[in-house]
Amino acid sequence: MNVAIIAAAGQGLRMAGKRPKQFLELAGTPIIFHTLQAFEQCDSIQEIIVVISAAEAAGFLSLAGKRELRKLRKVVPGGATRAESVLRGLQAVRETTVEIVAVHDAVRPFVTAEEIARTIAAAQVDGAAILVSSPVDTVKEIRDGAVVRTLRRDDLRNALTPQCFRYKLLRRAYEQADVFDPELTDESSLVERLGERVAIVEGSARNIKITRPEDLVLAERLLTSDF
Amino acid sequence: MNVAIIAAAGQGLRMAGKRPKQFLELAGTPIIFHTLQAFEQCDSIQEIIVVISAAEAAGFLSLAGKRELRKLRKVVPGGATRAESVLRGLQAVRETTVEIVAVHDAVRPFVTAEEIARTIAAAQVDGAAILVSSPVDTVKEIRDGAVVRTLRRDDLRNALTPQCFRYKLLRRAYEQADVFDPELTDESSLVERLGERVAIVEGSARNIKITRPEDLVLAERLLTSDF
Repeated sequence: MNVAIIAAAGQGLRMAGKRPKQFLELAGTPIIFHTLQAFEQCDSIQEIIVVISAAEAAGFLSLAGKRELRKLRKVVPGGATRAESVLRGLQAVRETTVEIVAVHDAVRPFVTAEEIARTIAAAQVDGAAILVSSPVDTVKEIRDGAVVRTLRRDDLRNALTPQCFRYKLLRRAYEQADVFDPELTDESSLVERLGERVAIVEGSARNIKITRPEDLVLAERLLTSDF
Repeated sequence: MNVAIIAAAGQGLRMAGKRPKQFLELAGTPIIFHTLQAFEQCDSIQEIIVVISAAEAAGFLSLAGKRELRKLRKVVPGGATRAESVLRGLQAVRETTVEIVAVHDAVRPFVTAEEIARTIAAAQVDGAAILVSSPVDTVKEIRDGAVVRTLRRDDLRNALTPQCFRYKLLRRAYEQADVFDPELTDESSLVERLGERVAIVEGSARNIKITRPEDLVLAERLLTSDF
Protein backbone atom coordinates (compact mmCIF):
# COMPACT_ATOMS: atom_id res chain seq x y z
CA MET A 1 0.00 0.00 0.00
CA ASN A 2 1.22 3.49 -0.83
CA VAL A 3 0.37 6.52 1.28
CA ALA A 4 0.44 10.22 0.42
CA ILE A 5 1.34 12.74 3.12
CA ILE A 6 0.10 16.19 2.10
CA ALA A 7 2.04 18.92 3.91
CA ALA A 8 -0.51 21.68 4.46
CA ALA A 9 0.67 23.22 7.73
CA GLY A 10 2.60 26.12 6.18
CA GLN A 11 1.54 29.62 7.18
CA GLY A 12 2.23 31.14 3.78
CA LEU A 13 3.95 34.22 5.13
CA ARG A 14 5.01 35.33 1.67
CA MET A 15 1.36 35.59 0.61
CA ALA A 16 -0.48 38.74 1.60
CA GLY A 17 -3.85 37.13 2.42
CA LYS A 18 -5.11 36.35 5.90
CA ARG A 19 -5.60 32.67 5.24
CA PRO A 20 -2.78 30.15 4.78
CA LYS A 21 -2.09 29.91 1.06
CA GLN A 22 -3.33 26.34 0.68
CA PHE A 23 -6.86 27.66 1.36
CA LEU A 24 -6.77 30.46 -1.17
CA GLU A 25 -9.17 29.73 -3.97
CA LEU A 26 -8.24 28.70 -7.44
CA ALA A 27 -11.22 28.76 -9.80
CA GLY A 28 -13.53 28.84 -6.77
CA THR A 29 -11.97 25.84 -5.00
CA PRO A 30 -9.33 26.01 -2.23
CA ILE A 31 -5.92 25.05 -3.63
CA ILE A 32 -5.57 22.04 -1.34
CA PHE A 33 -8.62 20.35 -2.88
CA HIS A 34 -7.16 20.63 -6.37
CA THR A 35 -4.07 18.94 -4.96
CA LEU A 36 -6.05 16.20 -3.19
CA GLN A 37 -7.95 15.50 -6.40
CA ALA A 38 -4.74 14.47 -8.20
CA PHE A 39 -3.98 11.95 -5.46
CA GLU A 40 -7.58 10.68 -5.45
CA GLN A 41 -7.24 10.02 -9.18
CA CYS A 42 -3.88 8.25 -8.93
CA ASP A 43 -4.28 4.46 -8.79
CA SER A 44 -0.85 4.09 -7.18
CA ILE A 45 -2.08 5.83 -3.99
CA GLN A 46 -4.39 4.04 -1.55
CA GLU A 47 -4.41 6.40 1.45
CA ILE A 48 -4.02 10.13 2.02
CA ILE A 49 -2.89 11.79 5.27
CA VAL A 50 -3.22 15.58 5.50
CA VAL A 51 -0.98 17.44 7.96
CA ILE A 52 -2.49 20.79 8.83
CA SER A 53 -2.21 23.40 11.59
CA ALA A 54 -4.53 22.74 14.52
CA ALA A 55 -6.21 26.11 13.93
CA GLU A 56 -7.20 25.14 10.38
CA ALA A 57 -8.14 21.50 10.98
CA ALA A 58 -11.81 22.03 11.83
CA GLY A 59 -12.42 24.27 8.82
CA PHE A 60 -10.63 21.84 6.55
CA LEU A 61 -12.64 18.85 7.78
CA SER A 62 -15.88 20.72 7.29
CA LEU A 63 -14.98 21.53 3.67
CA ALA A 64 -13.57 18.04 3.07
CA GLY A 65 -16.79 16.45 4.30
CA LYS A 66 -18.66 17.96 1.37
CA ARG A 67 -16.34 16.36 -1.17
CA GLU A 68 -15.90 12.80 -2.20
CA LEU A 69 -12.44 12.11 -0.87
CA ARG A 70 -12.42 8.32 -0.59
CA LYS A 71 -8.74 8.03 0.28
CA LEU A 72 -8.49 10.73 2.95
CA ARG A 73 -7.93 8.73 6.14
CA LYS A 74 -6.32 11.02 8.67
CA VAL A 75 -5.89 14.69 9.44
CA VAL A 76 -2.86 15.26 11.65
CA PRO A 77 -1.93 18.53 13.42
CA GLY A 78 1.24 20.12 12.02
CA GLY A 79 4.48 20.95 13.80
CA ALA A 80 6.59 24.08 14.06
CA THR A 81 8.46 23.39 10.81
CA ARG A 82 7.73 21.60 7.59
CA ALA A 83 9.99 18.74 8.61
CA GLU A 84 8.29 18.34 12.00
CA SER A 85 4.92 18.33 10.23
CA VAL A 86 5.96 15.62 7.79
CA LEU A 87 7.40 13.59 10.68
CA ARG A 88 4.02 13.76 12.42
CA GLY A 89 2.34 12.55 9.25
CA LEU A 90 4.85 9.73 9.05
CA GLN A 91 4.11 8.73 12.64
CA ALA A 92 0.45 8.38 11.64
CA VAL A 93 1.21 5.79 8.92
CA ARG A 94 0.22 2.18 9.68
CA GLU A 95 3.62 0.62 9.26
CA THR A 96 2.52 -2.98 8.88
CA THR A 97 1.01 -2.44 5.45
CA VAL A 98 2.76 0.56 3.91
CA GLU A 99 5.30 0.27 1.09
CA ILE A 100 5.90 3.78 -0.34
CA VAL A 101 5.26 7.16 1.25
CA ALA A 102 4.73 10.10 -1.16
CA VAL A 103 5.29 13.50 0.48
CA HIS A 104 3.68 16.39 -1.38
CA ASP A 105 3.25 20.15 -0.87
CA ALA A 106 -0.42 21.13 -0.53
CA VAL A 107 0.38 24.24 -2.56
CA ARG A 108 1.41 22.31 -5.69
CA PRO A 109 -2.04 21.69 -7.21
CA PHE A 110 -0.84 21.09 -10.78
CA VAL A 111 0.84 17.75 -10.18
CA THR A 112 -0.82 15.06 -12.30
CA ALA A 113 -1.88 11.55 -11.32
CA GLU A 114 0.54 10.30 -13.98
CA GLU A 115 3.49 12.16 -12.43
CA ILE A 116 2.62 10.79 -9.00
CA ALA A 117 2.42 7.24 -10.40
CA ARG A 118 5.77 7.55 -12.20
CA THR A 119 7.52 8.88 -9.10
CA ILE A 120 6.10 6.08 -6.95
CA ALA A 121 7.14 3.48 -9.53
CA ALA A 122 10.70 4.84 -9.48
CA ALA A 123 10.77 4.73 -5.67
CA GLN A 124 9.61 1.10 -5.77
CA VAL A 125 12.71 0.31 -7.84
CA ASP A 126 15.28 2.64 -6.24
CA GLY A 127 13.94 3.16 -2.72
CA ALA A 128 13.73 6.93 -3.19
CA ALA A 129 12.63 9.13 -6.12
CA ILE A 130 11.70 12.79 -6.52
CA LEU A 131 9.89 14.70 -9.23
CA VAL A 132 12.08 17.43 -10.78
CA SER A 133 12.09 20.07 -13.52
CA SER A 134 14.88 21.93 -15.34
CA PRO A 135 15.73 25.48 -14.23
CA VAL A 136 15.06 28.28 -16.73
CA ASP A 137 17.72 30.81 -15.72
CA THR A 138 21.47 30.35 -15.56
CA VAL A 139 22.33 29.53 -11.94
CA LYS A 140 25.39 30.97 -10.18
CA GLU A 141 27.09 29.85 -7.02
CA ILE A 142 27.88 33.00 -5.03
CA ARG A 143 29.90 34.00 -1.95
CA ASP A 144 30.50 37.37 -0.28
CA GLY A 145 28.56 39.34 -2.89
CA ALA A 146 30.31 37.86 -5.93
CA VAL A 147 29.98 34.95 -8.33
CA VAL A 148 32.04 31.87 -7.49
CA ARG A 149 31.08 29.92 -10.61
CA THR A 150 28.40 29.15 -13.15
CA LEU A 151 26.72 25.80 -12.58
CA ARG A 152 26.23 23.56 -15.61
CA ARG A 153 22.54 23.75 -16.40
CA ASP A 154 22.39 20.10 -17.48
CA ASP A 155 23.60 19.10 -14.01
CA LEU A 156 20.83 20.95 -12.14
CA ARG A 157 17.18 20.25 -11.42
CA ASN A 158 14.57 22.01 -9.33
CA ALA A 159 13.18 19.68 -6.68
CA LEU A 160 9.39 19.47 -6.93
CA THR A 161 7.03 17.14 -5.12
CA PRO A 162 5.95 14.39 -4.69
CA GLN A 163 9.08 13.01 -3.11
CA CYS A 164 8.58 9.26 -2.70
CA PHE A 165 10.40 6.84 -0.41
CA ARG A 166 10.19 3.35 0.98
CA TYR A 167 8.59 3.88 4.37
CA LYS A 168 11.45 2.40 6.38
CA LEU A 169 14.04 4.48 4.55
CA LEU A 170 12.18 7.73 5.27
CA ARG A 171 11.71 6.76 8.93
CA ARG A 172 15.42 6.07 9.20
CA ALA A 173 16.20 9.43 7.54
CA TYR A 174 13.98 11.26 10.03
CA GLU A 175 15.65 9.50 12.97
CA GLN A 176 18.90 11.25 11.98
CA ALA A 177 17.28 14.60 11.27
CA ASP A 178 17.08 17.86 13.18
CA VAL A 179 13.54 18.77 12.19
CA PHE A 180 14.10 22.35 13.38
CA ASP A 181 16.98 22.96 10.94
CA PRO A 182 15.79 25.85 8.76
CA GLU A 183 17.91 24.62 5.84
CA LEU A 184 15.86 21.45 5.68
CA THR A 185 13.65 22.30 2.70
CA ASP A 186 12.76 18.81 1.51
CA GLU A 187 12.73 15.14 2.46
CA SER A 188 15.15 14.13 -0.26
CA SER A 189 18.01 15.98 1.43
CA LEU A 190 17.55 13.83 4.56
CA VAL A 191 17.80 10.65 2.52
CA GLU A 192 20.79 12.04 0.60
CA ARG A 193 22.58 12.54 3.93
CA LEU A 194 22.25 8.82 4.60
CA GLY A 195 24.21 8.23 1.39
CA GLU A 196 21.21 6.52 -0.23
CA ARG A 197 20.45 6.91 -3.94
CA VAL A 198 17.57 9.28 -4.75
CA ALA A 199 16.38 8.82 -8.35
CA ILE A 200 15.02 11.76 -10.32
CA VAL A 201 11.81 11.66 -12.36
CA GLU A 202 11.41 14.41 -14.96
CA GLY A 203 8.17 16.32 -14.43
CA SER A 204 6.48 19.37 -15.84
CA ALA A 205 7.44 22.95 -14.92
CA ARG A 206 3.65 23.47 -14.64
CA ASN A 207 3.91 21.87 -11.19
CA ILE A 208 4.61 25.21 -9.49
CA LYS A 209 4.57 25.92 -5.77
CA ILE A 210 2.11 28.69 -4.99
CA THR A 211 3.95 30.91 -2.52
CA ARG A 212 3.69 34.45 -3.88
CA PRO A 213 0.75 36.52 -5.17
CA GLU A 214 2.01 36.31 -8.77
CA ASP A 215 2.03 32.51 -8.50
CA LEU A 216 -1.70 32.59 -7.85
CA VAL A 217 -2.22 34.73 -10.95
CA LEU A 218 -0.24 32.29 -13.05
CA ALA A 219 -2.06 29.36 -11.45
CA GLU A 220 -5.47 30.71 -12.49
CA ARG A 221 -4.29 30.75 -16.09
CA LEU A 222 -2.52 27.39 -15.96
CA LEU A 223 -5.79 25.87 -14.81
CA THR A 224 -7.59 26.86 -17.98
CA SER A 225 -4.79 26.39 -20.52
CA ASP A 226 -2.95 23.66 -22.33
CA PHE A 227 0.55 24.96 -21.59
CA MET B 1 29.78 56.98 -21.25
CA ASN B 2 27.80 53.79 -20.65
CA VAL B 3 26.28 51.77 -23.46
CA ALA B 4 23.47 49.19 -23.40
CA ILE B 5 23.60 46.26 -25.83
CA ILE B 6 20.12 44.79 -26.20
CA ALA B 7 20.31 41.17 -27.39
CA ALA B 8 17.23 40.76 -29.59
CA ALA B 9 18.44 38.26 -32.20
CA GLY B 10 16.93 35.17 -30.53
CA GLN B 11 14.45 33.17 -32.57
CA GLY B 12 12.30 32.23 -29.59
CA LEU B 13 11.87 28.61 -30.61
CA ARG B 14 10.19 27.75 -27.32
CA MET B 15 7.38 30.17 -28.12
CA ALA B 16 4.65 28.91 -30.43
CA GLY B 17 4.09 32.19 -32.35
CA LYS B 18 5.44 32.91 -35.79
CA ARG B 19 7.31 36.03 -34.74
CA PRO B 20 10.44 36.07 -32.57
CA LYS B 21 9.28 36.47 -28.98
CA GLN B 22 10.75 39.95 -28.52
CA PHE B 23 8.11 41.22 -30.99
CA LEU B 24 5.14 39.59 -29.31
CA GLU B 25 2.90 42.24 -27.85
CA LEU B 26 2.52 43.01 -24.19
CA ALA B 27 -0.37 45.39 -23.50
CA GLY B 28 -0.40 46.31 -27.20
CA THR B 29 3.33 47.11 -27.44
CA PRO B 30 6.06 44.72 -28.67
CA ILE B 31 8.04 43.41 -25.70
CA ILE B 32 11.31 44.94 -26.94
CA PHE B 33 9.91 48.48 -26.68
CA HIS B 34 8.97 47.94 -23.04
CA THR B 35 12.57 46.86 -22.52
CA LEU B 36 14.02 49.83 -24.41
CA GLN B 37 11.88 52.21 -22.36
CA ALA B 38 13.63 51.15 -19.13
CA PHE B 39 17.01 51.97 -20.67
CA GLU B 40 15.73 55.27 -22.08
CA GLN B 41 14.62 56.21 -18.56
CA CYS B 42 17.90 55.24 -16.89
CA ASP B 43 20.23 58.22 -16.45
CA SER B 44 23.25 55.91 -16.21
CA ILE B 45 22.84 54.87 -19.88
CA GLN B 46 23.79 57.25 -22.70
CA GLU B 47 23.59 54.99 -25.78
CA ILE B 48 21.64 51.91 -26.82
CA ILE B 49 22.70 49.37 -29.45
CA VAL B 50 20.12 46.79 -30.53
CA VAL B 51 21.36 43.49 -32.01
CA ILE B 52 18.66 41.89 -34.12
CA SER B 53 18.37 39.32 -36.88
CA ALA B 54 18.79 40.80 -40.36
CA ALA B 55 15.29 39.59 -41.29
CA GLU B 56 13.71 41.59 -38.47
CA ALA B 57 15.83 44.75 -38.70
CA ALA B 58 13.69 46.66 -41.22
CA GLY B 59 10.46 46.00 -39.33
CA PHE B 60 12.09 46.97 -36.06
CA LEU B 61 13.43 50.25 -37.46
CA SER B 62 10.05 51.14 -38.90
CA LEU B 63 8.39 50.63 -35.50
CA ALA B 64 11.24 52.33 -33.64
CA GLY B 65 10.94 55.39 -35.88
CA LYS B 66 7.47 56.07 -34.49
CA ARG B 67 8.74 56.16 -30.91
CA GLU B 68 10.88 58.65 -29.11
CA LEU B 69 14.01 56.61 -28.55
CA ARG B 70 16.64 59.28 -28.05
CA LYS B 71 19.40 56.90 -27.06
CA LEU B 72 19.01 54.27 -29.79
CA ARG B 73 22.14 54.76 -31.91
CA LYS B 74 22.74 51.54 -33.81
CA VAL B 75 20.94 48.47 -35.01
CA VAL B 76 23.38 45.63 -35.65
CA PRO B 77 22.59 42.31 -37.39
CA GLY B 78 22.78 39.32 -35.04
CA GLY B 79 24.98 36.23 -35.25
CA ALA B 80 24.29 32.51 -35.13
CA THR B 81 24.35 32.38 -31.33
CA ARG B 82 23.60 34.76 -28.50
CA ALA B 83 27.32 35.16 -27.80
CA GLU B 84 28.13 35.96 -31.44
CA SER B 85 25.31 38.52 -31.45
CA VAL B 86 26.60 40.24 -28.33
CA LEU B 87 30.12 40.23 -29.78
CA ARG B 88 28.81 42.03 -32.87
CA GLY B 89 27.15 44.59 -30.65
CA LEU B 90 30.40 45.01 -28.77
CA GLN B 91 32.28 45.57 -32.03
CA ALA B 92 29.88 48.44 -32.78
CA VAL B 93 30.79 50.31 -29.57
CA ARG B 94 32.93 53.45 -29.97
CA GLU B 95 35.77 52.41 -27.75
CA THR B 96 37.31 55.82 -27.22
CA THR B 97 34.47 57.08 -25.03
CA VAL B 98 32.83 54.02 -23.48
CA GLU B 99 33.24 53.06 -19.82
CA ILE B 100 30.61 50.40 -18.98
CA VAL B 101 28.72 48.04 -21.33
CA ALA B 102 25.37 46.74 -20.05
CA VAL B 103 24.22 43.59 -21.88
CA HIS B 104 20.49 42.91 -21.58
CA ASP B 105 17.99 40.37 -22.94
CA ALA B 106 15.34 42.03 -25.11
CA VAL B 107 12.79 39.62 -23.60
CA ARG B 108 13.24 40.92 -20.03
CA PRO B 109 10.91 43.93 -20.17
CA PHE B 110 10.38 44.25 -16.40
CA VAL B 111 13.85 45.45 -15.51
CA THR B 112 13.67 48.90 -13.89
CA ALA B 113 15.81 51.97 -14.54
CA GLU B 114 16.82 51.78 -10.90
CA GLU B 115 18.06 48.17 -11.24
CA ILE B 116 20.05 49.10 -14.35
CA ALA B 117 21.63 52.08 -12.53
CA ARG B 118 22.56 49.96 -9.49
CA THR B 119 24.16 47.25 -11.65
CA ILE B 120 26.16 49.83 -13.61
CA ALA B 121 27.31 51.51 -10.39
CA ALA B 122 28.54 48.15 -9.09
CA ALA B 123 30.41 47.47 -12.34
CA GLN B 124 32.08 50.88 -12.07
CA VAL B 125 33.48 49.79 -8.70
CA ASP B 126 34.20 46.12 -9.36
CA GLY B 127 34.68 45.95 -13.13
CA ALA B 128 31.86 43.45 -13.56
CA ALA B 129 28.39 43.13 -11.96
CA ILE B 130 25.24 41.18 -12.75
CA LEU B 131 21.65 41.49 -11.60
CA VAL B 132 20.44 38.34 -9.79
CA SER B 133 17.45 36.93 -7.91
CA SER B 134 17.05 34.09 -5.41
CA PRO B 135 15.73 30.74 -6.67
CA VAL B 136 12.33 29.62 -5.34
CA ASP B 137 12.72 25.83 -5.48
CA THR B 138 15.33 23.66 -3.80
CA VAL B 139 18.05 23.00 -6.40
CA LYS B 140 19.73 19.60 -6.78
CA GLU B 141 22.91 18.68 -8.53
CA ILE B 142 22.21 15.50 -10.49
CA ARG B 143 24.15 12.84 -12.43
CA ASP B 144 23.04 9.65 -14.21
CA GLY B 145 19.40 10.00 -13.20
CA ALA B 146 20.02 10.52 -9.49
CA VAL B 147 20.66 13.32 -7.01
CA VAL B 148 24.30 14.04 -6.22
CA ARG B 149 23.60 16.69 -3.58
CA THR B 150 21.33 19.50 -2.48
CA LEU B 151 22.81 22.93 -3.12
CA ARG B 152 22.60 25.46 -0.27
CA ARG B 153 19.91 27.91 -1.34
CA ASP B 154 21.73 30.87 0.23
CA ASP B 155 24.72 30.13 -2.03
CA LEU B 156 22.70 30.27 -5.28
CA ARG B 157 21.32 33.04 -7.43
CA ASN B 158 19.56 33.09 -10.79
CA ALA B 159 21.51 35.21 -13.27
CA LEU B 160 19.28 37.92 -14.74
CA THR B 161 20.25 40.84 -16.93
CA PRO B 162 21.63 43.47 -17.28
CA GLN B 163 25.12 42.10 -16.93
CA CYS B 164 27.49 45.08 -16.79
CA PHE B 165 31.23 45.20 -17.47
CA ARG B 166 34.05 47.63 -18.09
CA TYR B 167 34.31 47.65 -21.86
CA LYS B 168 37.92 46.45 -21.99
CA LEU B 169 37.23 43.56 -19.65
CA LEU B 170 34.32 42.31 -21.76
CA ARG B 171 36.37 42.65 -24.96
CA ARG B 172 39.14 40.63 -23.36
CA ALA B 173 36.62 37.99 -22.21
CA TYR B 174 35.25 37.68 -25.76
CA GLU B 175 38.75 37.30 -27.20
CA GLN B 176 39.08 34.07 -25.20
CA ALA B 177 35.57 32.84 -25.98
CA ASP B 178 34.19 30.23 -28.34
CA VAL B 179 31.03 32.10 -29.29
CA PHE B 180 29.54 28.92 -30.77
CA ASP B 181 29.72 27.02 -27.47
CA PRO B 182 26.09 26.11 -26.67
CA GLU B 183 26.83 26.16 -22.93
CA LEU B 184 27.61 29.85 -23.10
CA THR B 185 24.38 31.24 -21.71
CA ASP B 186 25.61 34.58 -20.39
CA GLU B 187 28.47 37.09 -20.53
CA SER B 188 29.30 36.73 -16.86
CA SER B 189 30.55 33.18 -17.37
CA LEU B 190 33.15 34.45 -19.88
CA VAL B 191 34.46 36.98 -17.37
CA GLU B 192 34.41 34.35 -14.61
CA ARG B 193 36.69 32.18 -16.78
CA LEU B 194 39.26 34.99 -16.78
CA GLY B 195 39.31 34.71 -13.00
CA GLU B 196 37.92 38.22 -12.61
CA ARG B 197 35.51 39.15 -9.83
CA VAL B 198 31.86 39.49 -10.91
CA ALA B 199 29.80 41.29 -8.25
CA ILE B 200 26.14 40.44 -7.72
CA VAL B 201 23.37 43.01 -7.40
CA GLU B 202 20.11 41.76 -5.86
CA GLY B 203 17.18 42.43 -8.18
CA SER B 204 13.50 41.60 -8.32
CA ALA B 205 12.14 38.21 -9.37
CA ARG B 206 9.68 40.27 -11.47
CA ASN B 207 12.49 40.61 -14.03
CA ILE B 208 11.48 37.41 -15.83
CA LYS B 209 12.70 36.23 -19.21
CA ILE B 210 9.77 35.70 -21.56
CA THR B 211 10.56 32.41 -23.30
CA ARG B 212 7.45 30.25 -22.93
CA PRO B 213 3.75 30.93 -23.56
CA GLU B 214 2.96 30.92 -19.82
CA ASP B 215 5.60 33.63 -19.31
CA LEU B 216 3.65 35.93 -21.60
CA VAL B 217 0.49 35.30 -19.59
CA LEU B 218 2.29 36.14 -16.37
CA ALA B 219 3.89 39.19 -18.01
CA GLU B 220 0.50 40.66 -18.93
CA ARG B 221 -0.48 40.53 -15.29
CA LEU B 222 2.84 41.77 -13.93
CA LEU B 223 2.43 44.82 -16.13
CA THR B 224 -0.76 45.88 -14.40
CA SER B 225 0.03 44.86 -10.84
CA ASP B 226 2.10 46.00 -7.89
CA PHE B 227 3.64 42.60 -7.15
